[in-house]
Amino acid sequence: MSRTPVWKSIALTLTDDIGQGRYDTGSKLPAEAQLAARFGVNRHTVRRALADMAEQGLVHARRGAGVFVAARPTDYPVGKRIRFHQNIRRAGRVPSKKVLRLEILAADPREADALRLEPGAPVVVYEGLSYADDHPVALARTIFPADRLPGLIPALAAHDSITAALRAVGVEDYTRRETRITAKLATATQALHLRISEGAPILRTTGISDDLNGVPIEFGRTWFAGDRVTLTVGDD
Amino acid sequence: MSRTPVWKSIALTLTDDIGQGRYDTGSKLPAEAQLAARFGVNRHTVRRALADMAEQGLVHARRGAGVFVAARPTDYPVGKRIRFHQNIRRAGRVPSKKVLRLEILAADPREADALRLEPGAPVVVYEGLSYADDHPVALARTIFPADRLPGLIPALAAHDSITAALRAVGVEDYTRRETRITAKLATATQALHLRISEGAPILRTTGISDDLNGVPIEFGRTWFAGDRVTLTVGDD
Repeated sequence: MSRTPVWKSIALTLTDDIGQGRYDTGSKLPAEAQLAARFGVNRHTVRRALADMAEQGLVHARRGAGVFVAARPTDYPVGKRIRFHQNIRRAGRVPSKKVLRLEILAADPREADALRLEPGAPVVVYEGLSYADDHPVALARTIFPADRLPGLIPALAAHDSITAALRAVGVEDYTRRETRITAKLATATQALHLRISEGAPILRTTGISDDLNGVPIEFGRTWFAGDRVTLTVGDD
Repeated sequence: MSRTPVWKSIALTLTDDIGQGRYDTGSKLPAEAQLAARFGVNRHTVRRALADMAEQGLVHARRGAGVFVAARPTDYPVGKRIRFHQNIRRAGRVPSKKVLRLEILAADPREADALRLEPGAPVVVYEGLSYADDHPVALARTIFPADRLPGLIPALAAHDSITAALRAVGVEDYTRRETRITAKLATATQALHLRISEGAPILRTTGISDDLNGVPIEFGRTWFAGDRVTLTVGDD
């Protein structure tokens, strides 16, 4: 019978503590010296345990600041239907959003091309922060054709989800044509919004959605905190 | 009629030079002073042009080393069928691969679970580097059930693509059950293999593929250089 190494049993005990909610997501674990005292081992052994947990993505060390409990990543399905609220709820979390910007601007050439508009045509620009259980998981910038969707600005301000706002202005359903996914490093502003470090990994998705008649009604980019979200592609 | 600013026309000229292959992917552009002389402008104007091109992802500056022509990211479709060689060829590039590791090991609990094997059952471990036009784009670690696929090791050594090797041992077709996508920062080893900087953004995919009878035959992880690949999800 093989004996569990001490560092491993410390890692399992701490993992259990986290699982039971004794240390909440985002909170700081006790310092190495305190953990060494608690388990009656030296700091090297504690460090080995924490490294093992970091490897599994359960905690992450911030240089000079300590070791923090990582949020379990939320599964986020990417397919023909991309619905933030529904995706977050399906992952057993509570979705919410904060509007950062909502205004009408002239479409730049890229936006006009995506939405099949004349350059300079009015577009609704929505920028928002999306939360799962009060943790910011995504920063979104979505462009809508203003003339095709009259009343969208008050609808976006009034409704909790984009799907509900679109329904309020007559878009019964919409599907994503294609989603493009790249990895980026968080800029200072993105880091601030998403409460991650500057230079942390970001998943960026870009996509265009069409209404049931195949007319583009949305061109969006979303930046997901890489540590908090796993995009999933599969049966849709 | 609006006049194109000087920096913009320099950016357009250089973009055109790159498009025509005068500066190849990965090569260094002339120094700022040389470009300033070529266009008869000051270095500030050259810098503005290069910043504009960097913003578009056409070039990237390496601190202290100069400005380099970025590879256009390769579109890589993620869906039920994930075929590296076919994906790269469809993007108009030449695929190739280099085997880094090919051996039989005992399955760890996670691999056994993914492939529905007993822990410790023999698995073929393939690690390889995949290229598009001689640029490394992905590092892959794929686990195959050795007993289900006799002869796979020589087949993988003999064939250029995994699809061809699997066909040689009797797997006519296989489909991806689900692909999970996260963003990570390149480790030192990944950076070395992919010829990127340590800490550069990486797209990591994880997935299990089944044969036509629904039996798992592959459990793989792939690390894509974030700047060189765009994963696409859509009509499949």
